[in-house]
Amino acid sequence: MSYLSSEEEKLSENEIIVVFQPSGKIAKVLAGTNLLEAARKAKINIPAFCGNRGKCGKCKIKILQKELPFTNQEMLTLSPEERSIGIHLACQINVTEDLMVEIIDEEKITTTSFLTYDIAEVYEIDGHLKKHHFKLNKPDINNMIDDSFNIEKHIPELQTDLFIPLPLLQSLSTSLRKNDFDITITTENNHVINIEAGDTSQRLLGIAIDLGTTTIVGSLVEMLTGKIMAVKAITNPQATYGADVISRVNYSNSEPGGLVKLQAIVIEAINEIIEMLCESTDTKFREIYEMSLAGNTIMNHLFLGVNPQFIAEAPYIPAFRKSQKFMAEELGLAMLPRGPVSTLPNISGYVGGDITGFILACDLHKKDKFTLGIDVGTNGEIVFGSKEKLICCSTAAGPAFEGGQISCGMRAMEGALDKYFIDEEQVFFHVIGDVEPKGICGTGLIDIVAEMVRFGIVDETGKIIDPGTFAGPDWLRKRIVHNGTNYDFAIVSEEDLGAKQSLFFKQQDIRELQLAKSAVAAGITILMKELNVEIDAIDEVLIAGAFGSYLNKYNALRIGLIPNIAPEKIKFVGNAASMGAKKFLLSKNARREAEEIINSTKYIELSMRMDFQEIFTEKMFFEQAGL
Amino acid sequence: MSYLSSEEEKLSENEIIVVFQPSGKIAKVLAGTNLLEAARKAKINIPAFCGNRGKCGKCKIKILQKELPFTNQEMLTLSPEERSIGIHLACQINVTEDLMVEIIDEEKITTTSFLTYDIAEVYEIDGHLKKHHFKLNKPDINNMIDDSFNIEKHIPELQTDLFIPLPLLQSLSTSLRKNDFDITITTENNHVINIEAGDTSQRLLGIAIDLGTTTIVGSLVEMLTGKIMAVKAITNPQATYGADVISRVNYSNSEPGGLVKLQAIVIEAINEIIEMLCESTDTKFREIYEMSLAGNTIMNHLFLGVNPQFIAEAPYIPAFRKSQKFMAEELGLAMLPRGPVSTLPNISGYVGGDITGFILACDLHKKDKFTLGIDVGTNGEIVFGSKEKLICCSTAAGPAFEGGQISCGMRAMEGALDKYFIDEEQVFFHVIGDVEPKGICGTGLIDIVAEMVRFGIVDETGKIIDPGTFAGPDWLRKRIVHNGTNYDFAIVSEEDLGAKQSLFFKQQDIRELQLAKSAVAAGITILMKELNVEIDAIDEVLIAGAFGSYLNKYNALRIGLIPNIAPEKIKFVGNAASMGAKKFLLSKNARREAEEIINSTKYIELSMRMDFQEIFTEKMFFEQAGL
Repeated sequence: MSYLSSEEEKLSENEIIVVFQPSGKIAKVLAGTNLLEAARKAKINIPAFCGNRGKCGKCKIKILQKELPFTNQEMLTLSPEERSIGIHLACQINVTEDLMVEIIDEEKITTTSFLTYDIAEVYEIDGHLKKHHFKLNKPDINNMIDDSFNIEKHIPELQTDLFIPLPLLQSLSTSLRKNDFDITITTENNHVINIEAGDTSQRLLGIAIDLGTTTIVGSLVEMLTGKIMAVKAITNPQATYGADVISRVNYSNSEPGGLVKLQAIVIEAINEIIEMLCESTDTKFREIYEMSLAGNTIMNHLFLGVNPQFIAEAPYIPAFRKSQKFMAEELGLAMLPRGPVSTLPNISGYVGGDITGFILACDLHKKDKFTLGIDVGTNGEIVFGSKEKLICCSTAAGPAFEGGQISCGMRAMEGALDKYFIDEEQVFFHVIGDVEPKGICGTGLIDIVAEMVRFGIVDETGKIIDPGTFAGPDWLRKRIVHNGTNYDFAIVSEEDLGAKQSLFFKQQDIRELQLAKSAVAAGITILMKELNVEIDAIDEVLIAGAFGSYLNKYNALRIGLIPNIAPEKIKFVGNAASMGAKKFLLSKNARREAEEIINSTKYIELSMRMDFQEIFTEKMFFEQAGL
Repeated sequence: MSYLSSEEEKLSENEIIVVFQPSGKIAKVLAGTNLLEAARKAKINIPAFCGNRGKCGKCKIKILQKELPFTNQEMLTLSPEERSIGIHLACQINVTEDLMVEIIDEEKITTTSFLTYDIAEVYEIDGHLKKHHFKLNKPDINNMIDDSFNIEKHIPELQTDLFIPLPLLQSLSTSLRKNDFDITITTENNHVINIEAGDTSQRLLGIAIDLGTTTIVGSLVEMLTGKIMAVKAITNPQATYGADVISRVNYSNSEPGGLVKLQAIVIEAINEIIEMLCESTDTKFREIYEMSLAGNTIMNHLFLGVNPQFIAEAPYIPAFRKSQKFMAEELGLAMLPRGPVSTLPNISGYVGGDITGFILACDLHKKDKFTLGIDVGTNGEIVFGSKEKLICCSTAAGPAFEGGQISCGMRAMEGALDKYFIDEEQVFFHVIGDVEPKGICGTGLIDIVAEMVRFGIVDETGKIIDPGTFAGPDWLRKRIVHNGTNYDFAIVSEEDLGAKQSLFFKQQDIRELQLAKSAVAAGITILMKELNVEIDAIDEVLIAGAFGSYLNKYNALRIGLIPNIAPEKIKFVGNAASMGAKKFLLSKNARREAEEIINSTKYIELSMRMDFQEIFTEKMFFEQAGL
């Protein structure tokens, strides 16, 4: 059976056609290609969290017109009802024949609900690119100066010989004469990176990238003024190969060409952001002269195509910690070919350039009093201390706060329930995009559990109680329903305003949240122990991450994610990694500071702490239920 | 008509087949391709001097089996006899149909008679590449050092951060572990250029290239000891596009893609030399870590693919004078991809890195007394002065000394008459390869004219005299024969030992020699005037070039090429440019000196001198006939 007309001939006998409905998009792939991969080829992003292990159940699709056998993993993850109507997990199917597939859940690559709260709008401007506009003296027979030196002698601050890269040297004489010796030279220290006609000395653009595991944010910056011209964000397409960094390392390690592929798709995604930034500001690619990039250590490795394998295995060794700087053309980035691209330096294998950016942006390394910085994402990184001493750790929070491993979890995008509140008579909720709720995202998750704790729907150990022992109002009791094994809680039911069908929260979902929050809370406790600091000595708690932007801090306190501190000390600093990347982009001083930060910030490996397991277990409970 | 069997099918209808006899080599080319180009494609080097202008008459071939029309230029250059038997100039034919061509004169690419006299065999060893062998400490959970820094901290002399290029960084972690942390790192200042398994610290090879307009010489050098492991030379294949540099600039300028082609063939030729050097010493390409290259300014530009157009037009401005350094991979050279390739710095548009190499090799910039340095080639470059002051100029000697523009001229290769002597009874001559003389090369030319002057066969003005007024022996008088217009001299006749047919020297050939020698002599005179130095104050005359190696200095004095100085002050320094390239390769000090040389050596543009024309005319005569 073929889904193509006879005119659309196949290129080879090994080629398989996959048609995705309802859009009708087509992928031509080789036999044996994974269905997720085929979907990517057709530019369809099916959500996937577990790195093709068939465990997260996010990549459900429906096979139309034929029946495929189920794998063992599908038998475990899918319900009999789902299987009976042809639902499969895309990650479990390697296509061997033409297929017609119905997409159940597609992620839009461009996140519409992205938001940043920038702490400071004013940056120090002290960049290392300089633009020099010259009208050179034309050589004549009495002044036979060579063209390179004619330029060099016009740059007075030059410490050493001027280096003109080969492609620029090859056309130097021609371009000088074409432009009547009236040119603008851009230098990075003693390197010429561009030669332009006429005077362009007032225009110098750069891009700061926050390369998140889940979301990539790019800011187009006017580097001579620090002005942010535009900000764009898209989902990191590497998510198809695993929601967390370890899944991606495994993929890069086990699949032939995996590393190259992961690098290629992230570069492609950044180029997409550049295109959006350029379109919205009427900028040309070649006008972007520089890029800084803040990502966690594994994202930095993957961005550069550097093998990250040994970060994932003890003793967790990265190939590099310092800032790396290469030319855009070496990485295939759509900007000035010889423009410098720098990664923010990493502190350790699990505390990366994004955290260096956080410290840099919030001046954590300059605080007089003790400050706690928390970046809650797939990994929860924690920084603690003052200008005297900074220490940090990374906790394996897992993807729960990004919607992973939660039965109805999803990312903070259209259709995600992101706020939740229960009063005596009803539940209130907010859905991103004001549409029918499709699932819950991280902030919704925290709100829901906090409310379940507050109303006693779960006990101190995290167990959803027998409705017979529930002391609250009847209407709420009815939402606790037995599922055959234990109890579910109907966070949304058909009776609620704005809901057409129920959404259930399961016992297992609470367990996932407990694991995640206790990982973060235990990390905080250990850092406080390490510096021998009591909670009252903490001056501020700064919460970073796109996640933090929407978080209800009272609920974060209630579930015990944050230590029991006065709420007014808790501040959301928004996308601190992105701010750090901008600061790094604009200032040589900031670059020096960043290198000092990675040398002076002590990394605590939690797995080496004898007390970790005990504290982690303690933090599983909901002790702050009484708040 | 097709020269191919039906099985050897043509690829396209536009493709023409050219068969070269007697070898039977075939070139498949597009219609419109120049026949010289077609010959190159078949790996046949037809001599050509004038840059396809049809003037030098060196590229004669015979068209077999069909008749082609003659161009106007062919009507002028070829004799009626030649035309009657189908002889054409290859440069004048653009092939439009299948052709069968007989090669009359083929140059062997590899010169067999190459010879160098090196002044010094001992070089200062002070290179800027360093090899470091380490057995690194393996990281563990208590010492989580990243792989880059693990290397960096083992290089104590490092002044700044170690830079690891992207391709090496990408595989760094894997290669460290594969080699059990036992590696050798090669650095150029703070740049890593190679990482190897185990201990290779005792092996570090480099290549010094003398990129001549006519001949390319490569020396494989053990850089830790200065030992020359092998020397190989081949003809510069750019000669097909013109014997002199100006013809090549014209070609690069007028032909679309001409610059790229000229660069590509010289890189290919250097790669051929590298291959020969590697084969003869059992070396791998990747073991060659560095290259230095001495060429004249235009050759340096063409080697780098830099547009040389404005050197050829007043005011003769090169794109660069300083040493240029790029990576081998940027140039397509068959050596370590990230190995540095440096050109010797140029003094001016017409006094290039080869002369800087000459000065460097012979320490002309350190001489207490006045020294005259002469490099006689297509251009005659002259350096004069002492450690107090050096000045230089370039004279348009033309290709006469390399066999060009002389009716029976040829390069110094097999079949070239290179020594000539007349006694009272007979002529004596030497032919390279001890074969039948095919033509005369530069040293033969000087000997012949000097002997003709000595015996009064030519008068002071350079005119071959009427045999009726000749005062010498009868047997010699008979060799002066009338050709209808003026007189020819039979330098070789059928009666001479070792000759089967006569070779005639024409009046026009003497004129060419006079133009060439007076250009050099006038240049010398002007430099002496510039420094106000009389001939007796000159301590030494150093003659460089492969040419100089065979030159009879008494004859050079007799024809007035060299000023009238005591013969014992004249020394041949052989291939000084090649020696300079080796010195440059092996020592940072030498590199610094070379940069100082180009800044302190004053270039005299002869065309700007009011007295040049007068001195040039004076020097046309043979005044030293009485020597």
